[in-house]
Amino acid sequence: MNYPNGKRTTKTLKLNQKQKPDFSNRGMTLEEDINETNAYYLREGIAVVHKKPTPVQIVNVNYPKRSAAVIKEAYFKQASTTDFNGVYRSRYIDFEAKETKNKTSFPLSNIHQHQIDHMKAVQEHGGIVFLIIKFTPHDEVYLLPSPTVFTYWDGQWDGGRKSIPYDKVQEKGILIPFHYQARVDYVKALDKLYF
Amino acid sequence: MNYPNGKRTTKTLKLNQKQKPDFSNRGMTLEEDINETNAYYLREGIAVVHKKPTPVQIVNVNYPKRSAAVIKEAYFKQASTTDFNGVYRSRYIDFEAKETKNKTSFPLSNIHQHQIDHMKAVQEHGGIVFLIIKFTPHDEVYLLPSPTVFTYWDGQWDGGRKSIPYDKVQEKGILIPFHYQARVDYVKALDKLYF
Repeated sequence: MNYPNGKRTTKTLKLNQKQKPDFSNRGMTLEEDINETNAYYLREGIAVVHKKPTPVQIVNVNYPKRSAAVIKEAYFKQASTTDFNGVYRSRYIDFEAKETKNKTSFPLSNIHQHQIDHMKAVQEHGGIVFLIIKFTPHDEVYLLPSPTVFTYWDGQWDGGRKSIPYDKVQEKGILIPFHYQARVDYVKALDKLYF
Repeated sequence: MNYPNGKRTTKTLKLNQKQKPDFSNRGMTLEEDINETNAYYLREGIAVVHKKPTPVQIVNVNYPKRSAAVIKEAYFKQASTTDFNGVYRSRYIDFEAKETKNKTSFPLSNIHQHQIDHMKAVQEHGGIVFLIIKFTPHDEVYLLPSPTVFTYWDGQWDGGRKSIPYDKVQEKGILIPFHYQARVDYVKALDKLYF
């Protein structure tokens, strides 16, 4: 479908920000694909990487007799870091994974200032930091190293554009081809870039 | 108080496992002290280490109009990793923090098999793994490197004792003295052990 007035982009962004699942393509979200990949890496002794749990502010808990505690009131908190971190080939790795339905660019509204702050701190301490971006219209997943992310993030406050162009992601990132066992086989891209 | 029948130890363990706060000594739990230390490390550019959020299985969420989503039903899940990880001097670090009211040993029932599995995997991949143990009766905090933990953990299935003796923690671990700004200044111990 076409939305010549540009509404499609706006709608897509809202859906992404609410983190609704994307039922397109292979039937799994990027996050699910990465979780499966991490489980495979762990089983095969390739890397130890986990998704951090969703941060929740717990307000009220019931402790019924003879059964598990039930959280009756809680609220979503904003994460202060990225979603994934772990260790690969003795290095600390840290990344955020985002999908976009945009064809021509990755909107920076998918990331938050505190995540950028975290990514910059990690980079200063010698960690490997990157984004994994899935362009669902192209069915393509890229690993984009942090320096390009920072350039565009900082540039937007300086009159720059509020998105990273698709062709810049192609140029500065590494395409991650789909594999059956490691659905988002990102360590291959890390090998090319950092080792 | 004395419990010559040994019940004191049992009671203490139950309290620890339920993770009730310890209101002894400085009025803060070990976890709170470490969270403050990590915030100080981040501010001062010393290290980037965070506590992982408590994992929660969310079952039911209300989305009221014009206000934040409310989680109405959720359950605590068992964590599949340790509580803290991050990057220090370009190395991946990973640890679990535990308090005990036991004077003479650290009971291994404070740790779980899946945490040991995680710690071993991290060590194999070149990460730095350890426990931070607080003996509240002594008001002492130790950093205990993973090899000693693994020796006692594996030994308990082989007829060994089900706790790590206090004097072994003193011998193999590093005492972390209390500092006003970095309440549990564990990176000093890491400097001695790993750098």
